[in-house]
Amino acid sequence: MSKLWNAGSETTKLKDLTNQFTVGKDYIYDMEMLPYDIQASKVHAEGLEQIGILDKKELKKLHKGLDEILNLWAKDEFVITIEQEDGHTAIEQYLTEHYGDVGKKIHTGRSRNDQVLVMQRLYTRAKLEIIFHLNKNLVQKFLDFSRNYEMIPMPGYTHTQRAMLMSVGMWGGSLAEMLILHLETLQSAYKIVNKSPMGSAAGFGVGFDLPREDNATKMGFDGCLNVALTSQHSRGRVEATVVSALADLGATLAHFANDLVFFTSSEFDFFEIHRDLCTGSSIMPQKHNVDPAEIMRAKHAEIVGAESSLRMMTANLISGYHRDRQQTKEPLMKSIDNIIGMLEMAEALITHIKPKEKNLRAKCTAELFAADRANELVKNGMSFREAYLEVKENLDQLDTEDLDKNLKSKKHLGATGNLGLEILEKELETKNLE
Amino acid sequence: MSKLWNAGSETTKLKDLTNQFTVGKDYIYDMEMLPYDIQASKVHAEGLEQIGILDKKELKKLHKGLDEILNLWAKDEFVITIEQEDGHTAIEQYLTEHYGDVGKKIHTGRSRNDQVLVMQRLYTRAKLEIIFHLNKNLVQKFLDFSRNYEMIPMPGYTHTQRAMLMSVGMWGGSLAEMLILHLETLQSAYKIVNKSPMGSAAGFGVGFDLPREDNATKMGFDGCLNVALTSQHSRGRVEATVVSALADLGATLAHFANDLVFFTSSEFDFFEIHRDLCTGSSIMPQKHNVDPAEIMRAKHAEIVGAESSLRMMTANLISGYHRDRQQTKEPLMKSIDNIIGMLEMAEALITHIKPKEKNLRAKCTAELFAADRANELVKNGMSFREAYLEVKENLDQLDTEDLDKNLKSKKHLGATGNLGLEILEKELETKNLE
Amino acid sequence: MSKLWNAGSETTKLKDLTNQFTVGKDYIYDMEMLPYDIQASKVHAEGLEQIGILDKKELKKLHKGLDEILNLWAKDEFVITIEQEDGHTAIEQYLTEHYGDVGKKIHTGRSRNDQVLVMQRLYTRAKLEIIFHLNKNLVQKFLDFSRNYEMIPMPGYTHTQRAMLMSVGMWGGSLAEMLILHLETLQSAYKIVNKSPMGSAAGFGVGFDLPREDNATKMGFDGCLNVALTSQHSRGRVEATVVSALADLGATLAHFANDLVFFTSSEFDFFEIHRDLCTGSSIMPQKHNVDPAEIMRAKHAEIVGAESSLRMMTANLISGYHRDRQQTKEPLMKSIDNIIGMLEMAEALITHIKPKEKNLRAKCTAELFAADRANELVKNGMSFREAYLEVKENLDQLDTEDLDKNLKSKKHLGATGNLGLEILEKELETKNLE
Amino acid sequence: MSKLWNAGSETTKLKDLTNQFTVGKDYIYDMEMLPYDIQASKVHAEGLEQIGILDKKELKKLHKGLDEILNLWAKDEFVITIEQEDGHTAIEQYLTEHYGDVGKKIHTGRSRNDQVLVMQRLYTRAKLEIIFHLNKNLVQKFLDFSRNYEMIPMPGYTHTQRAMLMSVGMWGGSLAEMLILHLETLQSAYKIVNKSPMGSAAGFGVGFDLPREDNATKMGFDGCLNVALTSQHSRGRVEATVVSALADLGATLAHFANDLVFFTSSEFDFFEIHRDLCTGSSIMPQKHNVDPAEIMRAKHAEIVGAESSLRMMTANLISGYHRDRQQTKEPLMKSIDNIIGMLEMAEALITHIKPKEKNLRAKCTAELFAADRANELVKNGMSFREAYLEVKENLDQLDTEDLDKNLKSKKHLGATGNLGLEILEKELETKNLE
Repeated sequence: MSKLWNAGSETTKLKDLTNQFTVGKDYIYDMEMLPYDIQASKVHAEGLEQIGILDKKELKKLHKGLDEILNLWAKDEFVITIEQEDGHTAIEQYLTEHYGDVGKKIHTGRSRNDQVLVMQRLYTRAKLEIIFHLNKNLVQKFLDFSRNYEMIPMPGYTHTQRAMLMSVGMWGGSLAEMLILHLETLQSAYKIVNKSPMGSAAGFGVGFDLPREDNATKMGFDGCLNVALTSQHSRGRVEATVVSALADLGATLAHFANDLVFFTSSEFDFFEIHRDLCTGSSIMPQKHNVDPAEIMRAKHAEIVGAESSLRMMTANLISGYHRDRQQTKEPLMKSIDNIIGMLEMAEALITHIKPKEKNLRAKCTAELFAADRANELVKNGMSFREAYLEVKENLDQLDTEDLDKNLKSKKHLGATGNLGLEILEKELETKNLE
Repeated sequence: MSKLWNAGSETTKLKDLTNQFTVGKDYIYDMEMLPYDIQASKVHAEGLEQIGILDKKELKKLHKGLDEILNLWAKDEFVITIEQEDGHTAIEQYLTEHYGDVGKKIHTGRSRNDQVLVMQRLYTRAKLEIIFHLNKNLVQKFLDFSRNYEMIPMPGYTHTQRAMLMSVGMWGGSLAEMLILHLETLQSAYKIVNKSPMGSAAGFGVGFDLPREDNATKMGFDGCLNVALTSQHSRGRVEATVVSALADLGATLAHFANDLVFFTSSEFDFFEIHRDLCTGSSIMPQKHNVDPAEIMRAKHAEIVGAESSLRMMTANLISGYHRDRQQTKEPLMKSIDNIIGMLEMAEALITHIKPKEKNLRAKCTAELFAADRANELVKNGMSFREAYLEVKENLDQLDTEDLDKNLKSKKHLGATGNLGLEILEKELETKNLE
Repeated sequence: MSKLWNAGSETTKLKDLTNQFTVGKDYIYDMEMLPYDIQASKVHAEGLEQIGILDKKELKKLHKGLDEILNLWAKDEFVITIEQEDGHTAIEQYLTEHYGDVGKKIHTGRSRNDQVLVMQRLYTRAKLEIIFHLNKNLVQKFLDFSRNYEMIPMPGYTHTQRAMLMSVGMWGGSLAEMLILHLETLQSAYKIVNKSPMGSAAGFGVGFDLPREDNATKMGFDGCLNVALTSQHSRGRVEATVVSALADLGATLAHFANDLVFFTSSEFDFFEIHRDLCTGSSIMPQKHNVDPAEIMRAKHAEIVGAESSLRMMTANLISGYHRDRQQTKEPLMKSIDNIIGMLEMAEALITHIKPKEKNLRAKCTAELFAADRANELVKNGMSFREAYLEVKENLDQLDTEDLDKNLKSKKHLGATGNLGLEILEKELETKNLE
Repeated sequence: MSKLWNAGSETTKLKDLTNQFTVGKDYIYDMEMLPYDIQASKVHAEGLEQIGILDKKELKKLHKGLDEILNLWAKDEFVITIEQEDGHTAIEQYLTEHYGDVGKKIHTGRSRNDQVLVMQRLYTRAKLEIIFHLNKNLVQKFLDFSRNYEMIPMPGYTHTQRAMLMSVGMWGGSLAEMLILHLETLQSAYKIVNKSPMGSAAGFGVGFDLPREDNATKMGFDGCLNVALTSQHSRGRVEATVVSALADLGATLAHFANDLVFFTSSEFDFFEIHRDLCTGSSIMPQKHNVDPAEIMRAKHAEIVGAESSLRMMTANLISGYHRDRQQTKEPLMKSIDNIIGMLEMAEALITHIKPKEKNLRAKCTAELFAADRANELVKNGMSFREAYLEVKENLDQLDTEDLDKNLKSKKHLGATGNLGLEILEKELETKNLE
């Protein structure tokens, strides 16, 4: 008797096909999610005791059983079989086998959908906390980098062509600032995730007086999703919101990676990178490639693909639960894994590159100063458009300026002489979940 | 002399091709954006006066000229030609033609990228305000609908099959609650948009002491994007964040639309819909199709496609502005138009449907009460899993319950007897931009 | 010495991070691809012998070693470790360990990219053959279904509302015809895949006279990708072409699945479905849900997401290999697995559903005949538009017609009385992979 | 009486909203499609005459009227109003107004869906012919370019780092070969488009003996979509197949564009590009940016977004027409316009760039020859892996080789000394639609 609700009928070839096809990798993914299911199940059991479905002794037994499962899991000794289909069944089965009738009571007032919803939100919340923390930490590294090399000149590009003078500090600071913006989106996703769906049952509530608010509080949720049906609607949709936030963040991490690929190439050669972050070639003995940066770009594309899947997967379904929503687990989990890996790698990269100042200065050629030259003429009374044309007609007379003086001379907020890093540092401090 | 910075060279066939290909529909899109460019240009001019680039008389002239353009625009008499490429050039050219040298001064300390960035953020912010307001209003309509039909029974579906009893009130309330969640995401997108990029120039700042904070305050921004280069990084990325928020909202609106398509079909026949929201067929005289709902579904798919475009368009570009980013205007504007249309149509739909109570009650058949029956047995002391099996083995003994009594009997938060609409109403009140 | 080309340097923490991050699941995916790498390596070795790099004895040793690896693999005894990074290294290492110096020769004139390219094309080709075959077989099942129930009436829907009379035969036949169209797209993808990249080395060729055409012929390829660099360009792009073809096919399979979800629901109730293709609910004892059909819809969304990932992953990369392209393996393999599963499930479904003729007839109500009634009037001399208005004004006079007579009376190609199934059968026969 | 089938009822505010929302830009898009609707309508009328619905005089009148509309259209004097909703209504209305009762007969045996299906396929086929032709022509330009600069050395990159020596000829040739591969996909899409849906009516056929095959032949189609319902299924799906083919092609065009952006930058500086293909900056007088190449990249992203929209738009719809499918027109037409623009621009670019041979040679530095050096050692008897390590340990001893000799020395098919351009030329000749 593997699936508890499938009373009696014989396993046929068709049943196997169906089971295999529908279960997919759920039984694997649920291994990662199991602690959150345990956490939720304990609270649900407490709620059942609170409303008199369980007595204190039964509750104790269930808690004991659930703790046992968690311990087995921690030692890699708890197994979810494909026949069990998912962790929820595996848990109920364990409790029933080891604790008898009380195991048959734990599913009172809930459905698997309900369980998945709660477990997945607890999981996602925990991961968002990690991601938020890693990102805050990464911002700090970028700010440190920016401070360390604040006044090292660097050519600024537009259209991949040399445009105006900037600084290594500006480059690092701009990436720090983008990452701070993403903290806002992560926060918002966190708020949306941090509501308890527990008690929605099959999406329509049940006839027991489940203490939904108390349960929510115990799990640290910021209140309940109110209407029972909302919980079902939210499945896949909230996942899409989360993955969108990760895609926003991923875009900046991939941007940084792409910059690194070019800025460490022979053609730009702006930064030295730690050899252990490079990989070799099987045919070309001279190669030191920044593969981690390239993989970061690709992982961003994976997150964007996951977002597409999620958006499409939940489209054009009538109100209520559909099994399609079960498939939202993989794109969510994979995106979370990807972004955590990218954040870790981004930290390794930003803390293991060094500007090659000599090269950077050498690339700060005369053309970078055309706009500055026009602005000089403006300061001497010419209109900007005339100054622009004047410089344009005399481009051969442009000359490299004193780089350090130029950097310092630009003093408005955000210019090279006044990046405003201290403002970013203060902003960073104020960013917290909750 | 159409583009002011293209001094002298003859127009060639190649030039025409290049101009046509790169300009695309910018000159059309900028017509919609023009008032925001004017607003920003006035503030920029004030800033130039503040730091001594312009004198008070010049500032006055520019303000006068900019107001004239706005008036012409309001009367549909201001034209941006394809040769001018965009609104920014058209404005500068107008000022120069009508006010002479002062027109040549307005571009001091800014670039077109800078202008687009500011204009596009002002535009997006204004539209987000409209969207937020429309969505709040729509939530209210759903809450009203839910209250009006709170206790009308309706079959609840899972897997598109009859599952448990719910109510029209639960259906409407769940959609209201989803829409409230989207207010959170819209708020977050708004915050990210509401920062001033003015003064970033080509992305690297300039050698004038531009009063960036003062300018930001004048335009109602909540501070500046600090580091100049951040503004360039943000182009297309912020647009993606906004369109993601719209896709989240679009998903719920399309969900509602899809429900309507089915719930007004002969097979479900749950709601009556106003005839003027239906369209006919050119070949089948009997048809009254809910085309608006179908178009809503399709428009959601358009928004999701726009999101994909935006994510891809800005990927793998090295730091600094690239013309690719100019193409982010269309997916942004189109998504905004789509969502506004969808919000308006959703309001028309929810306020012009009526439950067909008789049909709804007739579809509330015995199978809906299987879980309730099991729960009854639990209340009488059986374990849930045994109760479940007991009911499963005697499905033919299931009977329709008293629908009204059943609805009222479920009393936990979010169940049919206690939807928690008043909580949603309170939450709605607290949701405001800023 | 795990990676053969990483001579000497100590493993550091950073190296581990880099290895883990860049390798990802390659070492797992390559386990599935290994036989194709072996096949290609044998041919490459023969080529090396042909041009004198290896002698006959060395070739024999390599063949023996490669066969050993294949045997071990078949018995699940060949392992690729994460340190080895991929199957290519594992193979070279095995050969070197067991056959000494000759193992160090096999990589002459090739790079890992080259190896991946060949292996992945052999794998993809083999899978496309399976997919093509499964799809052809599935078409036959749909045609059989269509013939079996050719004249059972069924309401035809537009806008999810009853429109005109159709037949179960028409429904099945239309799906068969769509699937035949996809055979064309699969064929085209197959042709594009079926070119040998072997000999492109790092993308620029080498200074050995590699017998590329002979090698291609031995592997059954239809010629070579000519220019060495083309092979590198094609990586990820050809995968996108393949996954697009799968997405086209997936759309029709998901369409069928979605029809089934609705047509087996209580509201439509057109088909009976084998119980073993249904799954139950953990809370509602009465449920028999067609989860496999729902999972099919979701898997289609996964394929579409994979397509997005692939398109984005290879965008904006300069000519030549980049590690990003390595990440194209997963979306390809996952999409292939998904489509094969969907094809198998589609066959199980179409061969295990039966029309509920009584219900179908009962739903063929009067409104379905409005257009037919107008057409009658046309036959009696009225213009169509007048006939249309005449019927529209007298909708209450519409009556159900004799269903069987009506079906038979429509005789143009593709109408219910003349579906043209025999044409489809002939077309199916002509469809073959080269 | 604007929409002919909307007899009588008063226009209300709700009706206006509905009309505006559902019509969208159809009335604009149909202006471009009109000639194809005219062409199809003439054939449909002939078919009606053939089966006796029209007499010869009536047919003549309709042909005359349809020709008049085409003439008016050609002179920009035919207008489709938003009230008419689409071109189909506008045509029927014109015919009825100018030719009386016969105009009311033309819609016999067809629905608007049928009309859209035929018109859209005729339009798409015509555009695919243009695209195919433009692409063939472009291949020739790339082959010419490749021949012209066949032996100019160029550094080959992997991971954006210098890898091995290649040639300008190899670069151009590889792009030519990719474009040839896309001809295969375009051909396949063409075949799928080139089937007649005429006669499917509302998707279920009609009770007239429409001569579907004859009509198909007259319009140059390669047969009919057989089963009537297939035509409805195909709407949006065939569009997705076409847009996928365009996305494949777009990827290579964007790849070329991206190469140009980098290869014309100061850092690479490999090619000189015609000034008239560059645009300036509004703030930096020195700029000559290759904006057309950047726009090409962005347009590729637009096509990919359109593909996503199309895939999602038609997902999870039950069999039969839905208004969602009407929205597939825009992503199709926009993608077609984008790709045609990209093809034209690609031709302008490839014919207006010149290699800077001196720079190219200067960048062919010693590291490019590491693999060649190892291969030399192999030729002298060392195993490749040992040779590899030997070179790796003595990287400082690497020296630049004689570039011309090196290029010529690599003689296997596709290597620099034997690109196989003549094979590509022959292949190109064999590629034709049908």
